[in-house]
Amino acid sequence: MRTHYCGTVDESLLDQEVTLCGWVNRRRDHGGVIFVDLRDREGLVQVVFDPDRAEVFRTAERVRSEYVLQVRGKVRRRPEGTVNTDLRTGAIEVLGTELTVLNAAETPPFQLDEDEVGEETRLRYRYMDLRRPIMQTRLRLRAQVTGTLRRFLESHGFLDIETPMLTKATPEGARDYLVPSRTHPGSFFALPQSPQLFKQLLMMSGLDRYYQIVRCFRDEDLRADRQPEFTQLDIETAFMDEEAIMTLMEEMMRELFAQVLEVPLHTPFQRMTYAEAMHRYGSDKPDLRIPLELVDLTDVMAQVEFKVFSGPARDPNGRVAALRLPKGGEVSRKEIDDYTSFVGRYGAKGLAYIKVNDINAGREGLQSPILKFLPDTVVVEILNRTGAEDGDLIFFGADKARVVNESLGALRVKLGQDRGLVERGWRPLWVVDFPMFELDDKENRWVALHHPFTAPRTDDLAALSEHPGQLVSRAYDMVLNGTEVGGGSVRIHNMAMQQAVFGLLGIGEDEAREKFGFLLDALKYGCPPHGGIAFGLDRLVMLMTGAQSIRDVMAFPKTQTAACPLTQAPAPVSEAQLRELGIRLRPMGGDKKEA
Amino acid sequence: MRTHYCGTVDESLLDQEVTLCGWVNRRRDHGGVIFVDLRDREGLVQVVFDPDRAEVFRTAERVRSEYVLQVRGKVRRRPEGTVNTDLRTGAIEVLGTELTVLNAAETPPFQLDEDEVGEETRLRYRYMDLRRPIMQTRLRLRAQVTGTLRRFLESHGFLDIETPMLTKATPEGARDYLVPSRTHPGSFFALPQSPQLFKQLLMMSGLDRYYQIVRCFRDEDLRADRQPEFTQLDIETAFMDEEAIMTLMEEMMRELFAQVLEVPLHTPFQRMTYAEAMHRYGSDKPDLRIPLELVDLTDVMAQVEFKVFSGPARDPNGRVAALRLPKGGEVSRKEIDDYTSFVGRYGAKGLAYIKVNDINAGREGLQSPILKFLPDTVVVEILNRTGAEDGDLIFFGADKARVVNESLGALRVKLGQDRGLVERGWRPLWVVDFPMFELDDKENRWVALHHPFTAPRTDDLAALSEHPGQLVSRAYDMVLNGTEVGGGSVRIHNMAMQQAVFGLLGIGEDEAREKFGFLLDALKYGCPPHGGIAFGLDRLVMLMTGAQSIRDVMAFPKTQTAACPLTQAPAPVSEAQLRELGIRLRPMGGDKKEA
Repeated sequence: MRTHYCGTVDESLLDQEVTLCGWVNRRRDHGGVIFVDLRDREGLVQVVFDPDRAEVFRTAERVRSEYVLQVRGKVRRRPEGTVNTDLRTGAIEVLGTELTVLNAAETPPFQLDEDEVGEETRLRYRYMDLRRPIMQTRLRLRAQVTGTLRRFLESHGFLDIETPMLTKATPEGARDYLVPSRTHPGSFFALPQSPQLFKQLLMMSGLDRYYQIVRCFRDEDLRADRQPEFTQLDIETAFMDEEAIMTLMEEMMRELFAQVLEVPLHTPFQRMTYAEAMHRYGSDKPDLRIPLELVDLTDVMAQVEFKVFSGPARDPNGRVAALRLPKGGEVSRKEIDDYTSFVGRYGAKGLAYIKVNDINAGREGLQSPILKFLPDTVVVEILNRTGAEDGDLIFFGADKARVVNESLGALRVKLGQDRGLVERGWRPLWVVDFPMFELDDKENRWVALHHPFTAPRTDDLAALSEHPGQLVSRAYDMVLNGTEVGGGSVRIHNMAMQQAVFGLLGIGEDEAREKFGFLLDALKYGCPPHGGIAFGLDRLVMLMTGAQSIRDVMAFPKTQTAACPLTQAPAPVSEAQLRELGIRLRPMGGDKKEA
Repeated sequence: MRTHYCGTVDESLLDQEVTLCGWVNRRRDHGGVIFVDLRDREGLVQVVFDPDRAEVFRTAERVRSEYVLQVRGKVRRRPEGTVNTDLRTGAIEVLGTELTVLNAAETPPFQLDEDEVGEETRLRYRYMDLRRPIMQTRLRLRAQVTGTLRRFLESHGFLDIETPMLTKATPEGARDYLVPSRTHPGSFFALPQSPQLFKQLLMMSGLDRYYQIVRCFRDEDLRADRQPEFTQLDIETAFMDEEAIMTLMEEMMRELFAQVLEVPLHTPFQRMTYAEAMHRYGSDKPDLRIPLELVDLTDVMAQVEFKVFSGPARDPNGRVAALRLPKGGEVSRKEIDDYTSFVGRYGAKGLAYIKVNDINAGREGLQSPILKFLPDTVVVEILNRTGAEDGDLIFFGADKARVVNESLGALRVKLGQDRGLVERGWRPLWVVDFPMFELDDKENRWVALHHPFTAPRTDDLAALSEHPGQLVSRAYDMVLNGTEVGGGSVRIHNMAMQQAVFGLLGIGEDEAREKFGFLLDALKYGCPPHGGIAFGLDRLVMLMTGAQSIRDVMAFPKTQTAACPLTQAPAPVSEAQLRELGIRLRPMGGDKKEA
């Protein structure tokens, strides 16, 4: 139906006849001539209709925005002074000699170049929203990303193997989406939170290198930028240790960024232990583009009398730390108040600070509500450790270590963004040596920091139960510009170790057998050492496109209440369908009798 | 952990040290020496442990089938007379100098080379079953197929775009799998039977060329070789007509078979109308490798008095046809009885036949229970039309056309297989010009032969309602050796036509708006002409691997009752989970009060 894409017609086609198909981006009448910007996936081209050709001209007069046209015409140079150097097609135009209206269009619900269209409207008319060049670019880049990843992995012997969507409840911790079984009434499938167990089974099956770009599901409350269904690049290998896996994944990312963004990533990536990341950045996914660091003051503050600092400093679970903002002297009282509420969201009870006006003037040169509580030696130590200079602002956090890390970690990022300190470029990082277990304070029991199949760095079963809090795991997270883009680990391949870990996590033998019996069985019949990683594809593409939300890199995302304004899903179903599935609805407002 | 895959060690590595990892396929003790066949994804290699190295030898004595080993050793030539030319590694062996048992294995539930393992057992211990070389080959070929298809499509400008899994009930006709929504109690998502509407919306979004290898779901009773979840290669294009689409798909299949099987497919593929396919083969997916054809006798039989033939022949919905089996004279009376029961399954009330012993001997040379009912002229016409020769057997079908086509069509295939008439090779075929609508006899209403978005060959709205039974659609099926591997159509892009088709199918305005409102809306805002196709990936791979079931080309398939013996899915869930979803179970045995 066409000879070229609109967006590819350029001077190489001068004086040639072309046939184009596309949408009317804009129609203008100027000097008795009709100009149509015709748009397709590849871009825009200007088509001119001249009153000399009366019939074609009359048709052209009828067309409106978003009409679908087929145009035949001759490529010619644009008149001098009308060349548009922003467009590949900007030096030419097409003189339309034939015109077919393939479809008319009503007035669109919004203009494609309108800036402030509400997201609900964009999602409801997604087929309009996706016509916008920025959305087309994002979806095309996403397709390039998956294509490049697949080619890399396939060239390295990875097999694309599909795992089930209708499966058993997975142990990932989040809430499962359930699917009632009609053939087994009263039983349910779960949609996978990840293919974790299946990929491990594939390694036990001797398939050696597996990958899949796979849909995963979590029925979570959609705070932040989450979606009920998301896509994972899922990878598992046998007979490779963490060094080999990390090296290969670095190579994959380097290839990806080179191919898709033409950006060189330097390998090997920086590596940092979990402990160091928390210590220096208050986060296990630090954004290394921000040149601010937490400075520990716990030892110093343990000596002061000021309880706000000495209390946490003397608490074994507490921490006192400072964050120096160079040139932060300009920050106003009002802004400091705002930052105080900001860290409050992370549980911080306040935000102490010192403004460094003149470092050589002693206490006189400093401005701070807390200064009076601190002895000179401590003040000097603070200035020394933070490397303070005239004009700087130093913030303090003193609380449980978790609160200090989370609040100062978040403040660090916010200051970086607010003050324009975020450096350009890509700063990939591996975070390693995660704790194997974390103590759940409320329930006073150990929980796995990754998942219960992650191998500890020790093979010593005794060490496991003696010092669970001190064990590090063989897990690794890939962090890019402050976002965790991937995470993985070497898995447990030893039956006794797997049972010991289940035991420590309070998963009893019966529960283990019921939930993971098949995994425990499989471990008995010749399980190879294996490990893998999973990348959040949506987030990775979001970063690569510079989009602000994963919803902008998905063709048909859902809203924050997990609904689709386009199709109106979810929707009620018939009583007959429910009956077939052996379920019925609970009356609205709860049913106390059963509760 | 290794320098080479086991299966790749050959004479090029003579005298070199290698490190291998894999499973013990077999251990033999022979002449005081231990031989281990070590297996990995790439194949087997023979490792020899010599008592000279006492420690290594003692470890080797411990190993059993399916133990996971890491072996270091030197590659040497096998002694003369022990070379195995069937194996790539058959000329060499590895003299083991170091041996680590990476994992032990209990006695496997079945031997990998055991032939008669029940499918339930194979699925329950799928991680053992998948270690068998034939299963590894199938999954690897499947990965090659998807890789090749993706590369072809991407090189032709198709974008891999993901569509939702949690969506609205689709109009494909089969039963949906439902997913209760927690955030919208009483409402349900449906898992997609296909991304049909989304891919059409992507064309309306101007994305121009879409593809996806995508999971689809149908909650059907699993007669035959069906699975609750299956995989589709899904394709849609804008501004391409059926000729362009079919040509591109032929090219894709040619590329696929050349790359993966090294088999040349000849293009263009043969094309046949639906009418011709039914007439000659009694099937809309004829296996062209079988050189048998139906011969129509309806006109001839309309004249005879024998009601069994003349009745159907005079019925406008009836048909009388013959199927000649060359050299069928050898078929025994018992076998004919078996074929009679076989066609009975398709509704045929009997299976008349004539054995042609001596064609020149007139009636004397023919053997048949029905001969006495047929006049000479008719007998001569039968022999002429079927091209009968001495020694042939002619079968007859006389009934509603549907019954004749189904029963003789199936008999044709069965005879082809039983009598060894199936030719070698690949016989792809397009079937085109399908009827747009079929009359549902029971409900006396029109149903769409494909789906309700398929465009008719006419643009004439009046023709639609006047002669719905005579309209042909712009649909096309790709048939390969008797299996429908793909099907598609040009879609309706005109709002009025879509409404007219809905109307004819008895989908009222309210229902249309409720189910497809978003599609009707989208048609208003500039919908391009578009069309596409979907291929059943599992079936295609099954054909290409020569497997007998799609279950053999899926890593983790379900049983005929839609259950997974490995994970025990589906499974009961907790009352708390049900409460959160706003549903409860119906009491077993039904709940009449509500019904």
